[in-house]
Amino acid sequence: MNTFGKAFSFTSFGESHGEGIGCVIDGVPAGLKIDESYIQKELDRRKPGLNVYSTPRKEEDKVKILSGVFEGLSTGTPIALFIANTNQKSKDYGELKELFRPGHGDFTYFKKYGLRDHRGGGRSSARETVARVAAGAIAKKLLSEFGIKVQSGVSGVGELKSELIDFQYAQKSEIYALDASCEEAWKQLICDARSEHNSIGSEVRLRASGMIAGLGEPLYDKLDALIGGAMMGLNGVKAVEIGEGVRASRLKGSQNNDQMDKNGFLSNHSGGILAGISTGQDVEVKLHFKPTPSIFSKQKTIDAKGESKEFELRGRHDPCIGIRGSVVAEMMLALILADLLFLNTNSNLGKIKKCYFDID
Amino acid sequence: MNTFGKAFSFTSFGESHGEGIGCVIDGVPAGLKIDESYIQKELDRRKPGLNVYSTPRKEEDKVKILSGVFEGLSTGTPIALFIANTNQKSKDYGELKELFRPGHGDFTYFKKYGLRDHRGGGRSSARETVARVAAGAIAKKLLSEFGIKVQSGVSGVGELKSELIDFQYAQKSEIYALDASCEEAWKQLICDARSEHNSIGSEVRLRASGMIAGLGEPLYDKLDALIGGAMMGLNGVKAVEIGEGVRASRLKGSQNNDQMDKNGFLSNHSGGILAGISTGQDVEVKLHFKPTPSIFSKQKTIDAKGESKEFELRGRHDPCIGIRGSVVAEMMLALILADLLFLNTNSNLGKIKKCYFDID
Amino acid sequence: MNTFGKAFSFTSFGESHGEGIGCVIDGVPAGLKIDESYIQKELDRRKPGLNVYSTPRKEEDKVKILSGVFEGLSTGTPIALFIANTNQKSKDYGELKELFRPGHGDFTYFKKYGLRDHRGGGRSSARETVARVAAGAIAKKLLSEFGIKVQSGVSGVGELKSELIDFQYAQKSEIYALDASCEEAWKQLICDARSEHNSIGSEVRLRASGMIAGLGEPLYDKLDALIGGAMMGLNGVKAVEIGEGVRASRLKGSQNNDQMDKNGFLSNHSGGILAGISTGQDVEVKLHFKPTPSIFSKQKTIDAKGESKEFELRGRHDPCIGIRGSVVAEMMLALILADLLFLNTNSNLGKIKKCYFDID
Amino acid sequence: MNTFGKAFSFTSFGESHGEGIGCVIDGVPAGLKIDESYIQKELDRRKPGLNVYSTPRKEEDKVKILSGVFEGLSTGTPIALFIANTNQKSKDYGELKELFRPGHGDFTYFKKYGLRDHRGGGRSSARETVARVAAGAIAKKLLSEFGIKVQSGVSGVGELKSELIDFQYAQKSEIYALDASCEEAWKQLICDARSEHNSIGSEVRLRASGMIAGLGEPLYDKLDALIGGAMMGLNGVKAVEIGEGVRASRLKGSQNNDQMDKNGFLSNHSGGILAGISTGQDVEVKLHFKPTPSIFSKQKTIDAKGESKEFELRGRHDPCIGIRGSVVAEMMLALILADLLFLNTNSNLGKIKKCYFDID
Repeated sequence: MNTFGKAFSFTSFGESHGEGIGCVIDGVPAGLKIDESYIQKELDRRKPGLNVYSTPRKEEDKVKILSGVFEGLSTGTPIALFIANTNQKSKDYGELKELFRPGHGDFTYFKKYGLRDHRGGGRSSARETVARVAAGAIAKKLLSEFGIKVQSGVSGVGELKSELIDFQYAQKSEIYALDASCEEAWKQLICDARSEHNSIGSEVRLRASGMIAGLGEPLYDKLDALIGGAMMGLNGVKAVEIGEGVRASRLKGSQNNDQMDKNGFLSNHSGGILAGISTGQDVEVKLHFKPTPSIFSKQKTIDAKGESKEFELRGRHDPCIGIRGSVVAEMMLALILADLLFLNTNSNLGKIKKCYFDID
Repeated sequence: MNTFGKAFSFTSFGESHGEGIGCVIDGVPAGLKIDESYIQKELDRRKPGLNVYSTPRKEEDKVKILSGVFEGLSTGTPIALFIANTNQKSKDYGELKELFRPGHGDFTYFKKYGLRDHRGGGRSSARETVARVAAGAIAKKLLSEFGIKVQSGVSGVGELKSELIDFQYAQKSEIYALDASCEEAWKQLICDARSEHNSIGSEVRLRASGMIAGLGEPLYDKLDALIGGAMMGLNGVKAVEIGEGVRASRLKGSQNNDQMDKNGFLSNHSGGILAGISTGQDVEVKLHFKPTPSIFSKQKTIDAKGESKEFELRGRHDPCIGIRGSVVAEMMLALILADLLFLNTNSNLGKIKKCYFDID
Repeated sequence: MNTFGKAFSFTSFGESHGEGIGCVIDGVPAGLKIDESYIQKELDRRKPGLNVYSTPRKEEDKVKILSGVFEGLSTGTPIALFIANTNQKSKDYGELKELFRPGHGDFTYFKKYGLRDHRGGGRSSARETVARVAAGAIAKKLLSEFGIKVQSGVSGVGELKSELIDFQYAQKSEIYALDASCEEAWKQLICDARSEHNSIGSEVRLRASGMIAGLGEPLYDKLDALIGGAMMGLNGVKAVEIGEGVRASRLKGSQNNDQMDKNGFLSNHSGGILAGISTGQDVEVKLHFKPTPSIFSKQKTIDAKGESKEFELRGRHDPCIGIRGSVVAEMMLALILADLLFLNTNSNLGKIKKCYFDID
Repeated sequence: MNTFGKAFSFTSFGESHGEGIGCVIDGVPAGLKIDESYIQKELDRRKPGLNVYSTPRKEEDKVKILSGVFEGLSTGTPIALFIANTNQKSKDYGELKELFRPGHGDFTYFKKYGLRDHRGGGRSSARETVARVAAGAIAKKLLSEFGIKVQSGVSGVGELKSELIDFQYAQKSEIYALDASCEEAWKQLICDARSEHNSIGSEVRLRASGMIAGLGEPLYDKLDALIGGAMMGLNGVKAVEIGEGVRASRLKGSQNNDQMDKNGFLSNHSGGILAGISTGQDVEVKLHFKPTPSIFSKQKTIDAKGESKEFELRGRHDPCIGIRGSVVAEMMLALILADLLFLNTNSNLGKIKKCYFDID
C-alpha cells in the first residue's frame, strides 16, 4: 500500500516528525549512472523554506544513498534513499493531540487506525513527498536515456489563471510561474492570503515531451488512468485534466478529434493519449490544488471524544500547496512513464527477441 | 494489466467482435447471495440499443455464471461471468483494416503491439465495459451488506450543464438525466449531433452514500487516487473532479475547509475524502466525457504505411458516451469501495482480533 | 489469489462439477502463433480416462479460445481459454455432503469458508489443473521461440525408484515412465494398489534445457523459489528437490561445488541455478507425490457437526497422482520460465535500449 | 521483486559491504506493541561471530527503527528498520573482482546484470537475511497475539541425521541442535570440515504450533506453496519437505491419510496442511541445506573474459549454513503465517461483518 509502480516501483516510509523519510526503488536496471548531486538538485527544487512563498520550516533535505549503487552505477538491486528530518518542532503540535484539524487527515486516520501520530500529520504530511522527489529524480534520469523529458509549473493562483505556458521560465521563477506576466500578481495573492492568516488554491501544468508512442497498459494501467490516480493521490489535488480536460465535455466530435496526415497529428486535443496509450505527442496535464487546509484563524472542530471545540492553529505551512506541489507532480509523471516504458518492453514478441537475440 | 483491485479484484477479457466479454472476480467472500437476475438488471442499464440516444447495435448482453457460486451462494472461489457477443457486424470494419480512426486507439494499439484486431476497436472498444458492469453488480451487492450505496447520472450535455442532482429521477430517465428540467434539451442536443453526423460531450455525477469512515489505503491506494485512476481510465473521460474539484483551486482555505462540531461535518467541500480516506460523508465525483470520436463526416487520417488518407466512417455508435458511460463509472466506484472495504479489515489489531476471536 | 505469475500471468477459475474450467492468460506479447490444436495436444497428455492407470472419469477436455487471438496471432490482449465439464456425476458425492474425506481439502475449506461445494472437491479438485495445462501450453510455445524446452516423466512408484532418466521414452509410455526397464513393475504396483482399493505414491522429474543464463529475480522471485512454490502447491506434492536436493545436506563443499573452466561448468550439482538465477545449464527438479487420498476402504472421519463417522468412499480417481501430475508440473515450470524471461528483459539498461533503439 | 508477502509484506534492501541492510514492513495493523529490544533479541540469534561454529565476521547487527512506531505502538504506517554494516573488509574481495566463485551467484549475477558488486557477494550475500529476521521478529510478535508460535532447529549435519526433535533444547544449543545426544558429534563434523578448509551440509526442522485452521489462499498462495517458495529461496536450501515429505512418495493411501474422530486428527502425515490450507495441527517442515560454497582449497573457475583460472578463496564464512539459516527459515515461516492470517480475514462474509459490526 506504500508502493507505487509495477516494473519500476518505489516504496516510501517515514513521517513528518520521525527520524526521516526514505524510499526503496525497485526495478532500476543495472548500468544507470546515479549521480547523488543530481538527486539533490531535484530535492532542492521542492525544499521547504526557500523563500517567503513557502513554509518557514527549514529542512536541509540531504539525501543519502543506502544501497543499490556501486562505483557510480546502479547494480539492478534495490536503491534505498534516506533523508533525515532535522527541523521538527513537535511541541507545536502538543495541543493538537486531541483535536482534528479541519481539512486534514487527522479525523480519517483516527477513524481508520484507532490511534495516530498527531505530530504534523505524521504519515499524512506532505513531507512524505520528499521520497517521491528522490525516486522521481532517478526516474527522470532513466527517461533521459530514452529522450523523454517531463516539466512542470504553476498556471494559476486563486481566481487568476493563465493559458501562457512557458516551462523554461518556470525553472527560474521563485513560485515556478509558467507566465511571467502573471508572476507578480500571483505572488501578491499568496502574500495577501498569508497575511490574512488564510491560504489559497492553485493550478498546475505538466508536460512530457520526446514521448515514445505505445506507452500505457490496457486496460487497467492505461497512461491516463495512472496519471489520474497518481495526481489525485497528491495532497490537495481535487481535479485532474488531460488534454482538453473539462472543456472536452462541451465539444462536438468534429471539434475534439485529432486528425492526422503523413506528417503526423494535426492537433493535440487528446493530450497525447488515445485509448490509454501514448501517441508520441506531448502529454499534457492540468491539476487543481485546493488551498492549504492549515489556516490560522479560529475554526470549529471536535476532539477525540466527539466534543465540539474551537481552536486556532499554529505551526509552519505553505500558504499555496501547488507551488512545491508542482515539483512533486512532475516527479509522479516521471515515475509513471518509467514504469510504463519498462512494462512496454514485453508488448510484442519481436521486441523481446531483439532484446535477447538481435533478431528483428 | 487486465486486473483491477487488490483484495477484491476482477480480471476482464474479450473483444468487441470476438466470442464475447467476460471477467473473473476474485476475493468475493463466501456466503454472499448471488442473484443472476440482479446482475442482469444492472447489465440492462448499460445495454446498447435501448433507445434512440444510444448505438443501434443490439446486444442481448445475457450473463452466464461459469464458476464460484453453489446453491445460490458465493463459495469464496473465483466467480467467472461470460457475456456472449451476438450482433457483431465485422464487415462494417473491412475498410478500416488499414486506416487509423481519429480519436480512437487504432494508431496507438498498432504502435504498441505491431498488429491489431481492427474490428470495432477490438479490445479498446467500450464493449469491454460490460465486464465491468457485471463485476460491479457483485460489488454493489457486497456493499449493500454494509449499507453503502452508489448512484450515477448525467448532469450535462455539451454546453448545457446543471447543478440539480436528482439520482432518483435519473433512474427513470432514458438518458439518466439528473435534472428533469434539462432532460428534453439534452435529448435534443444529442439528436442534433447525430443528425449532423457528429457527436457531443457530456458530464456525469457519482455519489456513494451510507459510507463507512476509514476506507482508503495510504499512500498509494488512497480512495481519491483510486477514483482518479479508475475514472480517467474509462473510455472518453478527460477530467475527474472530487468534491469542490476545479473550483477548489480558486478558493481560500477558510472557504474550502470543512469544519466540524459534535453533530458532524458542517459542509462537504472535500467530497467525503480527507488525506485519501473516507470521512463517512457522501463521496461526490464529477466526470467529463469527450464527444464520441466515431463521427460520420469526412476526416483526415493515415494508413498503416503512413500515407495520408481521407475517409468517412460507417458503423453503429453512441452519439454521447456519458449516458451509458455513467453506469460504468458507477460500477467502478462500487468496485473501488468493495476493494477498500476488504483492505480496511486489517487496519488495526483490535478489528482483526474481533474478526477471529470476538475480542474487543 | 487465483493468479500465477507477474509479467506473464494466468488466472484460473472453475470447479470439478461446475460448468467447466478456464483461465485468462495475461502478458502474452503480440505476434505469437497460437495453434489451437497444439494446446489440445498438451491437454490430451493430461486427459483423464486414457488408460487403466488413470481415473475412469471420461472428459473430452476440448479447449475453446474465447479471446486474445486474431487471425492466428496473439494480439497482446488477454487470452481466455475454456474447457467445459461434460462428465460430472455429482450424485456420487451426495453422501459426502456432510462428511470430510481424509487427506482432502474438505475439512480445511469448510473451516476457511464456512461452506463448501462438496461435489468432487469443488475448487480443490485436481480437475482445476486442466487450466494450468492450457496456459502452460502457451508458455511452452513462447519458450520455444527462445530455444527453451521443458520435459517431464515418472521416476518412481512406491518403493521402486530409478535414476535412469529418459525423457524421450516417457513421451511414449502410458505412465510417462522415464525408465523403460521399470515401467512394467511400476504398472503392476499401480494395478495392485487399485485392486486393494488403495493408492500409491510416486516420484517425478522435470528438466528445462536450452536455458538462457540470467533468469530469476532476486530476492523473492528467484527461479528456485518459484519452482519450490509452484511445485509444492500442486495437489499431492509433499517434497521438492532441485539439483542434488536432499543429498546436498550430506555433502561437503568440495563435493557439491560446480567448478568451471573456459568450456563451461564441470558438473551440475546446483540443478542449473545459483543464487536463484539460471546458470544456462539444465534445470533439474525432482518431486515427491503422496498417494491419492481417495481410497475405497473404510475410514474414520467426522461430519460437519464434529461427530465421529465411518464411511467408504466411492467415485472415480487416479490410483497414482504423479502420472498425470507430471504433465501439470512440467507446465508450471514452463509458466515460471516464461514469466522470468519477460521479467528479465528489464534487468540491464543496455538490453532495454536495444529493445527500443537497436543501440548496443 | 524485493518484496515478500501481500497483506503483510516487507521489502528489503542493502548489500554485504554497503552501508547496511534494511527493510520496510507494510501491513502491520495499528496498535501492536513494538519492542525494539525484542527485535534485537531475534537478530542476536542470527548474529555472526557468536562462536566457533559461525563466521568470524563480527557484526553488532544493531537495529534502528526509522518509522512507523509512535509511543511504543505501531501506527499502521510502514515500519522501516535499518541495520548498519560495521565490519566490512572489502579488500578481502579485491582479487575476486574478475573471478566467479564456484557455487556462488557471481556468475549468474554477472550474466543477468552485466556488472556486479563483487564485495562479499553484494546483494546475493546471506547478510541480506538480517532484514528477514528483523521483519520476522515483528511477524512473530503479531502471531503471538493469536496464539501461534514458530520454532526451528538443526536435525542433521552431513551424514548424521536425527529424528529426535526438541525445540526447547535447540534454544540453548550453540548450534541450535534439536537432539542433545547428537550435538557433540555435529560440532565435531563442523570443526573437521573447517579444519580441512571445507564445509558441510545440514538439515533443519521448523514447526508452527497453536495454529488456526483455515490459513492458506487457494490456489496459488496455498500455505504449502508459500513455504515451498520461501524456503527454496533461502541461500543454500536445495530441498523442502512438508509432513511426510519425501517418504510420502513411497507410501500407500491407507498409510498416509490422516483419519479423524470427534477428538480431532488421529495422525499428522500431512504436516498440518490439506489442499494448501492449515488444518489446525502443527505445521511441520524439513529443509536440506547444501554445504557452504565458500571453501578454502584450490578451485577451477573462469574470469569475466571467460578464461580458465585456478584460485584459493580467502575471507570469513560459516562452515555450515543451516545453523544460522535455521533462524532465518523460522522467520520466513512467521512472515508467511502473518500474511495468510491477514488474507484470511476476508474469507467469508460473516467474518468481515463481525469485524465491522459485531454482527454474527
